[in-house]
Amino acid sequence: MGRKLKMGMIGGGPGAFIGSVHRMAANLDGEIELVCGVFSSDPKKSLQTGKSLHLDHERIYFDFESMIKKESILPVSRRMDFVSIVTPNHLHYKPAALALQYGFHVIMDKPMTFDLEEARKLKEIADESNKLFALTFTYTGYPMVKEARQLVQSKRLGKIRKVYVEYIQGWLSDPLEKGKHKQAEWRTDPKRAGEGGCVGDIGIHAANLAEYVSGRKIQEVCASLNSVVAGRKLDDDCTIMLKLENGITGSLICTQVAAGEENNLSIRVYGEKGGLEWRQEEPNTLIVKWEGKPKEELRVGWTYNSGVTLKNTRTPSGHPEGYLEAFANIYKNFSMAIQNQNRKKNIAYDFPDVNEGLRGMAFIRAAVKSSQAHQKWTAIKV
Amino acid sequence: MGRKLKMGMIGGGPGAFIGSVHRMAANLDGEIELVCGVFSSDPKKSLQTGKSLHLDHERIYFDFESMIKKESILPVSRRMDFVSIVTPNHLHYKPAALALQYGFHVIMDKPMTFDLEEARKLKEIADESNKLFALTFTYTGYPMVKEARQLVQSKRLGKIRKVYVEYIQGWLSDPLEKGKHKQAEWRTDPKRAGEGGCVGDIGIHAANLAEYVSGRKIQEVCASLNSVVAGRKLDDDCTIMLKLENGITGSLICTQVAAGEENNLSIRVYGEKGGLEWRQEEPNTLIVKWEGKPKEELRVGWTYNSGVTLKNTRTPSGHPEGYLEAFANIYKNFSMAIQNQNRKKNIAYDFPDVNEGLRGMAFIRAAVKSSQAHQKWTAIKV
Amino acid sequence: MGRKLKMGMIGGGPGAFIGSVHRMAANLDGEIELVCGVFSSDPKKSLQTGKSLHLDHERIYFDFESMIKKESILPVSRRMDFVSIVTPNHLHYKPAALALQYGFHVIMDKPMTFDLEEARKLKEIADESNKLFALTFTYTGYPMVKEARQLVQSKRLGKIRKVYVEYIQGWLSDPLEKGKHKQAEWRTDPKRAGEGGCVGDIGIHAANLAEYVSGRKIQEVCASLNSVVAGRKLDDDCTIMLKLENGITGSLICTQVAAGEENNLSIRVYGEKGGLEWRQEEPNTLIVKWEGKPKEELRVGWTYNSGVTLKNTRTPSGHPEGYLEAFANIYKNFSMAIQNQNRKKNIAYDFPDVNEGLRGMAFIRAAVKSSQAHQKWTAIKV
Amino acid sequence: MGRKLKMGMIGGGPGAFIGSVHRMAANLDGEIELVCGVFSSDPKKSLQTGKSLHLDHERIYFDFESMIKKESILPVSRRMDFVSIVTPNHLHYKPAALALQYGFHVIMDKPMTFDLEEARKLKEIADESNKLFALTFTYTGYPMVKEARQLVQSKRLGKIRKVYVEYIQGWLSDPLEKGKHKQAEWRTDPKRAGEGGCVGDIGIHAANLAEYVSGRKIQEVCASLNSVVAGRKLDDDCTIMLKLENGITGSLICTQVAAGEENNLSIRVYGEKGGLEWRQEEPNTLIVKWEGKPKEELRVGWTYNSGVTLKNTRTPSGHPEGYLEAFANIYKNFSMAIQNQNRKKNIAYDFPDVNEGLRGMAFIRAAVKSSQAHQKWTAIKV
Repeated sequence: MGRKLKMGMIGGGPGAFIGSVHRMAANLDGEIELVCGVFSSDPKKSLQTGKSLHLDHERIYFDFESMIKKESILPVSRRMDFVSIVTPNHLHYKPAALALQYGFHVIMDKPMTFDLEEARKLKEIADESNKLFALTFTYTGYPMVKEARQLVQSKRLGKIRKVYVEYIQGWLSDPLEKGKHKQAEWRTDPKRAGEGGCVGDIGIHAANLAEYVSGRKIQEVCASLNSVVAGRKLDDDCTIMLKLENGITGSLICTQVAAGEENNLSIRVYGEKGGLEWRQEEPNTLIVKWEGKPKEELRVGWTYNSGVTLKNTRTPSGHPEGYLEAFANIYKNFSMAIQNQNRKKNIAYDFPDVNEGLRGMAFIRAAVKSSQAHQKWTAIKV
Repeated sequence: MGRKLKMGMIGGGPGAFIGSVHRMAANLDGEIELVCGVFSSDPKKSLQTGKSLHLDHERIYFDFESMIKKESILPVSRRMDFVSIVTPNHLHYKPAALALQYGFHVIMDKPMTFDLEEARKLKEIADESNKLFALTFTYTGYPMVKEARQLVQSKRLGKIRKVYVEYIQGWLSDPLEKGKHKQAEWRTDPKRAGEGGCVGDIGIHAANLAEYVSGRKIQEVCASLNSVVAGRKLDDDCTIMLKLENGITGSLICTQVAAGEENNLSIRVYGEKGGLEWRQEEPNTLIVKWEGKPKEELRVGWTYNSGVTLKNTRTPSGHPEGYLEAFANIYKNFSMAIQNQNRKKNIAYDFPDVNEGLRGMAFIRAAVKSSQAHQKWTAIKV
Repeated sequence: MGRKLKMGMIGGGPGAFIGSVHRMAANLDGEIELVCGVFSSDPKKSLQTGKSLHLDHERIYFDFESMIKKESILPVSRRMDFVSIVTPNHLHYKPAALALQYGFHVIMDKPMTFDLEEARKLKEIADESNKLFALTFTYTGYPMVKEARQLVQSKRLGKIRKVYVEYIQGWLSDPLEKGKHKQAEWRTDPKRAGEGGCVGDIGIHAANLAEYVSGRKIQEVCASLNSVVAGRKLDDDCTIMLKLENGITGSLICTQVAAGEENNLSIRVYGEKGGLEWRQEEPNTLIVKWEGKPKEELRVGWTYNSGVTLKNTRTPSGHPEGYLEAFANIYKNFSMAIQNQNRKKNIAYDFPDVNEGLRGMAFIRAAVKSSQAHQKWTAIKV
Repeated sequence: MGRKLKMGMIGGGPGAFIGSVHRMAANLDGEIELVCGVFSSDPKKSLQTGKSLHLDHERIYFDFESMIKKESILPVSRRMDFVSIVTPNHLHYKPAALALQYGFHVIMDKPMTFDLEEARKLKEIADESNKLFALTFTYTGYPMVKEARQLVQSKRLGKIRKVYVEYIQGWLSDPLEKGKHKQAEWRTDPKRAGEGGCVGDIGIHAANLAEYVSGRKIQEVCASLNSVVAGRKLDDDCTIMLKLENGITGSLICTQVAAGEENNLSIRVYGEKGGLEWRQEEPNTLIVKWEGKPKEELRVGWTYNSGVTLKNTRTPSGHPEGYLEAFANIYKNFSMAIQNQNRKKNIAYDFPDVNEGLRGMAFIRAAVKSSQAHQKWTAIKV
């Protein structure tokens, strides 16, 4: 690689969860340097966060327009190379669009935008720019998720028949949004989160995982979206039947009110000859069940894994990798693509882009519509 | 207890799977003696099986009518006390009805009958007789399933919100019925299995388990029933959304085409304060996840289990019990009820009866109708 | 098979644990009938137990000499075929010797005798008789333990290097023997248990398992035997280094004071190419770890298991078997050997015999001597 | 915190494993900047590595003396604050001693030195300097290891009785050192590794973990050290009995020839009321088994964990942390101590220091001597 890449950040001030995750992910490999940021709409908080991150005072900004415009006129050797956007959903589109238009690559947290309309516009802008756009659908960054995808593509499981994907959380079991819980507050507010609650926050991760591993797109959904906790305006619990390309059927279950659960994302894919299972909470194992042969557990770090998997692994077998390493893979692969001025995704160093982002928004839209129509099968239209 | 009970058997000849399971279950506690049987419609096979089971030749019968009638005129000290019916589904109703009418208690494999109509008639007959009727919904015989039910009833999980139940098998991944696979053959044949394939064979186990553990009845289903394997006439794969009493929602997934899976039945129930999880393939553990407290694993055989659970446990903790012990609990509790001339189920020694059997048949009907109506919500009517 | 075998029992009255286990194990397959017994040295208790087991009053005895002698003069068609001895250790030798001398086959709980000297005498008597002798080293009755042994013998793991075996219990963490805990009382009393406490109660299970799976004998031990609970006369905690035939080394850890543990027996065996692991508390899985290949989990009931394993399996995959089924395998295989008048063990239907019993006693002796000599390596001499 | 700390590195060139681990660990939190290094004794390789790490050419050195001396005369604002030493064992003492003497803090990979004598000298030097010294006994950096230690200290397990610690690897099953495997080569060479092979490479991790979690020191060992692979000069397989302070006994098993194993480090500690278990390969769970109460699984990231644990956790529950995060905790806590000019370890932000390092070397010595004396109990003398 050449020089370190310079990163600016939008969002990620005090009380944020995902901002510091993005920063650690960006730090891990020593190839990215945070050089500037606007961390909060409150100038004091932005300044405080920027200082704690050892930024030069003049590179701590108070609104994203200023940052993007000022950085764009700095000499190439100083100015940021890309911007990382980690704000709530309703504050995704504008900074992303502006950054692309001013010539910066963009990496952004999911879901891509506030609604499907914004997503379509952003896709156009990204396609027209010659800049890279990455979306942190974190879970496809895990080595054993990549191994799962490779296994499906190897056809060793035979023709795929079923996909079961689940994302079970419990953190919204109580009406935290009525307290001062910043994360709960905006995620349950239709004005900031968008039309999907649980489906938009975690359902799209599950949908993205299902498409990534199976290599097939979800075509139609039959969705039941619930608000379990009294007074909640958005869904916090979803059950969705799926039809994917190639005659695959499946189900997607996601909920945020399963008290006691952590971040229980899992996927199972079955073909004619066997099935695979991956669980995010123990992510270094890929279980493969074979018809008529012993069950296998593939473990991260062994040379029997696919080349793609090994290229996204940092430590030898038995040295567990986790969430931050998966997240860092997206940053690493995005950085490598920038360094290589390669707008196309290298299959071995892939990362989710504007197309996956758009599909996520279309998935939310279809699920919401299907549920409103009392579980009518609804096509996903990007 | 008094004397050993005497059992007759209908079905369970060569090539049968469940017949020998019933016999082992009946044997385990030394309280039941097999005294007679008709094991096959082929007299030779019936004789051969009867001999191998050490029966007196005159107690080996060649049709169920003869057996029931002849046994009924034997002296009480010799004649069978109850009959165990382990034939395919289309041969359930008649022998059961006749046995009850001739004054024998009946224990029978699931599903209760060929169709809902037969089930309703059998319920009437059973209710009118003063005889006991048990149905081997095996899985509620497991100690930790009983513990799960007790936990829900203790209200420690808070108000229940969600029920997820799954029954994932792979044994029908290939069209075994085209070979000489006896089990596959009748189970995929609408003339012998009834209107449900997978839903009737294993879906009803899952539905029964959901109702047993949650203590709430399934009211409506929105079902998608598939035939995945080409040429199969009945469903072999189902995804079903559930509405239960008290506002509980959930899902039931069952399939027999998930290649590589064994007999992967599991249930998860979530309340406001925590959730439980039980998996049949490792049945001696009940996982309880609490909001804000460490996850617990309750293990069979410890005195901290409920009294009900302990009364259905045979060995101390660390001495794993399995499928046959669960099955044997149904036989044991059924026997105890006979010995105690107690037609009502003792809560500690419960077993599934004609009501659960009827609910199972109504569940199959509702699922089939919902699926035929393209996932229309359909009420379960017994 | 021919007719049902008739069993007499010595021991197993009120308060006993293992007596009812033996009875359930004998019952399971419907090939053995309990016909007589002396269940306690207290005649009232013997009578009470015998009645509850539905025995004829004249076949309930009050001392083992009477039973053996009286049964021996009954007509062959009525008298017991074999005797099951389930008394505490100090009451093993005499009834076993007498039974063999009177022409009865014997099945007995472990350890074989009170001390090594008795064991040597019993072996002589057994060898001289033309009767079968079985010892319930239960754990080698598990199908997946047999699979483990077969795997080693297949040489797929390469030359074996290491054996780690553990048996971790917690039930003697507190001085239960000071209360009225019958099991704890005799097991901690040198006059009834013999010279070994924990090593004699569970250490020999571990040693037997190590030899069975590895196919190699333990030659020398370097043992540290502790009494952790104050005032306990026998060891309740042991750490033992092992040298086995063929240059294999290993360790055996057993303890009864690991508070919170159940019956945590496990074995790991490593060869040049991979290793196996089996855990009694989840006994239906055999884990195989391969150098450079995915880890495998072999599961009970699949046809890929060895013929030996399948012959000791009762249910299809996914229908878990447990402790009682393992125990019942010993009874089943012992019964088959009687039926076949086959004094040699059939490899597919093996069961532990007087030689394993003698090795167990020699193991206890060597461990006790090594520990008394401050961890001096001590040979096992049968 | 103040400004970012500046790090120099010694070792970690091409082919090294642990060097890049140290760098990622140092990077993660964005509080440390690599500014200089000597990465190989081969100047070309040092240069190549330094460039790939984006260092200024003038800060890439070719021997450690030059680096330490030249850095020491740079202005404070530019010069390195501490040095990270990641060379093979025989190259630990000299650079560490020199760095301390020139006023640099030191963080170093384990074992601390080539032999016990060097370790004693280094301890003196470190004690006399007013600089901080950290040793990367990685595994005590895991949050749930800290939770385990806190649990023991809370006395909830009662008086501790037993410690079982194991470190099972398979990577040296074959004689890799005869190929060009750099890691295997120096680790099996007494001139570079020191007197301990397996015991020095991983046994000391296990010993350190046992002391850290139990809070008690190992006083005596009875060790059997083997060379299993033919021609290997150092041990590759060890079984060690332990006596710890306060009457605790235990065992330590470590091996590098258990084919198929990865990095299987685990610890179990039992007290009068319960026991704990932690496994490095699934590090986010701490299992606690209670006498008479349900087993618990404590999971990382929940607020029920101790304050110490939470201060060493980066992500919410369900977002698994791994080996690099544990490693990074040592860097983070070491950095914080530097920033706070705090030579004493803060209990919440602890890290292993020169005392643990010295104990490790004394442990190796005692184990080697005990084994040479045919398993004679040998005291650990620092």
